[in-house]
Amino acid sequence: MTSISSLHERFDPAQSLPFLLSRFAAFGATRNGGVTRLCASPEDGDARSFFKDALTSAGAKVLTDAVGNQFGIFSLTDRPDAPIVMMGSHLDSQSRGGKLDGALGVAASLCVGQSLLDAKRGGTLFDANFCVVNWTNEEGARFRPSLLGSSSYVGLFSTDYVLDRRDDDGISLGEALSAIGYRGMDTPPQLPGCYLELHVEQGTRLEEMGAQIGIVTRNWGAVKFQAAFLGEQAHTGPTAMERRKDALLGAAHAIIAVREIADRWAGIVHTSVGRIQVEPNSSNVVAARVEISIEVRSSDDAVLSEVAALAEKAIEDAAERARVRAEIESRSDRKIRELPHDVCNLIALCASEGGHESLQMDTIAGHDAISLLGICPTGLIFVPSIAGISHNEAEATDEADLAAGLDVCIRAAERLCRAGASPQRAVLIDLEASQ
Amino acid sequence: MTSISSLHERFDPAQSLPFLLSRFAAFGATRNGGVTRLCASPEDGDARSFFKDALTSAGAKVLTDAVGNQFGIFSLTDRPDAPIVMMGSHLDSQSRGGKLDGALGVAASLCVGQSLLDAKRGGTLFDANFCVVNWTNEEGARFRPSLLGSSSYVGLFSTDYVLDRRDDDGISLGEALSAIGYRGMDTPPQLPGCYLELHVEQGTRLEEMGAQIGIVTRNWGAVKFQAAFLGEQAHTGPTAMERRKDALLGAAHAIIAVREIADRWAGIVHTSVGRIQVEPNSSNVVAARVEISIEVRSSDDAVLSEVAALAEKAIEDAAERARVRAEIESRSDRKIRELPHDVCNLIALCASEGGHESLQMDTIAGHDAISLLGICPTGLIFVPSIAGISHNEAEATDEADLAAGLDVCIRAAERLCRAGASPQRAVLIDLEASQ
Repeated sequence: MTSISSLHERFDPAQSLPFLLSRFAAFGATRNGGVTRLCASPEDGDARSFFKDALTSAGAKVLTDAVGNQFGIFSLTDRPDAPIVMMGSHLDSQSRGGKLDGALGVAASLCVGQSLLDAKRGGTLFDANFCVVNWTNEEGARFRPSLLGSSSYVGLFSTDYVLDRRDDDGISLGEALSAIGYRGMDTPPQLPGCYLELHVEQGTRLEEMGAQIGIVTRNWGAVKFQAAFLGEQAHTGPTAMERRKDALLGAAHAIIAVREIADRWAGIVHTSVGRIQVEPNSSNVVAARVEISIEVRSSDDAVLSEVAALAEKAIEDAAERARVRAEIESRSDRKIRELPHDVCNLIALCASEGGHESLQMDTIAGHDAISLLGICPTGLIFVPSIAGISHNEAEATDEADLAAGLDVCIRAAERLCRAGASPQRAVLIDLEASQ
Repeated sequence: MTSISSLHERFDPAQSLPFLLSRFAAFGATRNGGVTRLCASPEDGDARSFFKDALTSAGAKVLTDAVGNQFGIFSLTDRPDAPIVMMGSHLDSQSRGGKLDGALGVAASLCVGQSLLDAKRGGTLFDANFCVVNWTNEEGARFRPSLLGSSSYVGLFSTDYVLDRRDDDGISLGEALSAIGYRGMDTPPQLPGCYLELHVEQGTRLEEMGAQIGIVTRNWGAVKFQAAFLGEQAHTGPTAMERRKDALLGAAHAIIAVREIADRWAGIVHTSVGRIQVEPNSSNVVAARVEISIEVRSSDDAVLSEVAALAEKAIEDAAERARVRAEIESRSDRKIRELPHDVCNLIALCASEGGHESLQMDTIAGHDAISLLGICPTGLIFVPSIAGISHNEAEATDEADLAAGLDVCIRAAERLCRAGASPQRAVLIDLEASQ
């Protein structure tokens, strides 16, 4: 196996990316080829330590901020205050998740950093520094909500709020980060001039269209509810049926109604209930309290509003059918937004230069890039997911597609770093002439 | 507060029972007046230690068997091999359960033992010894199935099977009992000549009929299923709705269908789903595997068979609707059975002698007494539950009804212990003449 220290000396992106991915895949590896690397778990700690060592050995300066975001700064200029081109993703995973979701973006950005540093050593002149990032708790699997690290970085959530999020055992993110040694003290780097992220598509569009590179031009809107059903704890034996106030029955009606909403808008609405918590959750006790996590997503703003209202109504109706009460504990709205044209154009140019078929598309899932959207020019690049399998141990992408994704990222990042992080200027750079 | 050591010297059942109940209620007390005293938890350990000390101080010999059942033997004869009259219940509770469920039967049997020993000292001649018992894991809240201790005692389950039951954290009952010091080494006492249990009704029948004493003549049959729905783990965002195999959606359909079965046989069928376990249970992951605990109960054997078959069909249909697979992981059948007439007659006589209105009735819930049924003459005595509230912190019974229940138990146990544990002979004893 290639050692970290030897990585830099004979850097070859085509070899380096598979090597890094296989190393990351070992942290929290499951028997079926996936990973369980929940945020701030010991496995996440090991992955972070490997990442930190790899960054250091590649010549980057590593910073860890108060919420555990890890930044690796590759100095490509002599000016520490030069604009930054940032690229990254996340190392946390779902339980029994895939080994590429997040890890691909982190590993690829490290390869890009190495490649740019090699280019600098080879004489290329840069006008921006490059920063690699691993965002804390993108998944929202252990701590809710998702996208905590990137949202904190852009100022959407306070540090205290983020550190006080608790898992199902009542452990706070702050405590969990301290336990693995990744509750940092460093000031994070300045906001970037441009942010890029490489991710697996998690859908089938690229595969169906025979393209290697997805240029994300828009994200779907999403409304996420926490709904609680409040019944009355009782014995499942002698308690008369007509007296029961069964919170789990209420939740069951809601789960079905939420699914039926999606069936009415085929293709433009996705809905789900993935999480349920039952009290006391005993086989011979009528449930007193049940909380469910509802998501509705759409590619159309008007439809999303209508669907979210229907979901709220469905929660009420479900409670009524089970003679229990319902409460919306929380609701978060993520609007449909366009990704900036300039960055999309840059990605299209780089795909074309590399000879990779590309396709403009939506992202339905949230990603850290969406946290950065509106803060700085942001680009999100997809590579195909085999059969669209995602949040699943069987998640996979062809090696050639991974290499194509990395190639596009290296081209885009090199152009951006030579153009002072400006995507408008990055497309104008004449690579032949300036080298 | 009365000390344990002073209990015996000035024994008065009317004072002793409320005192014991208030002491037991303190172990695992919740803010809303209930108890959370899960089997083999530290709180259960404290309650067991108090019980053991109280037994010893009352003059009983205490034995703890391999599965943690606690027996307190009151020697009322000079013959250790004399027949035994056994009386007891359980000290474990549901999460946020009531303070009387189980504890009443244990506390009352201790009072009965004290009363009988007093009578012996006063010159009464007995022909059986009396044994008080606290059965391990009646509730099935922490370890499944329920009735583990009493089932083990009668030979239905092996010791190894019982000790290897695991809670949701993977801790075995054996480990949990060791941790609290109640994995015993004693051989349990011989099977009793007669078993009695006092319990709260957990329904509203006694209250509605204005009776203080329920004489249980029959238990409802119950079929309990563990059903697993097997879907496909996927991202709740980009995964196309028509490709999803949502195990939680399948379970939701089953929960509703199981409820609808009960609605078709109003009054003679009770059904429930009280417990659900979801993998991975993450808000943005389509559930891969969901297990639910289904119970169907009926007062009619033919109906129970039909209803159980309908429940199995409902599980299949629910899986099909959600395009997932279903598996019945386990099924247990408890038949409808009559309690022996001789013991019911004895209880009726004792209620009448005490001036308490009694009523013959069914038990819908399972109790440790049902484990003993068929092994020895078994009697189950109910006192009213206010508003039928059960498995709930608000569970309560009027003090006068508690006292009536204890009075019936003392009368029945005294007759039984004087009649060599024979319920037939116990009703014939002429108390006036023989004293």
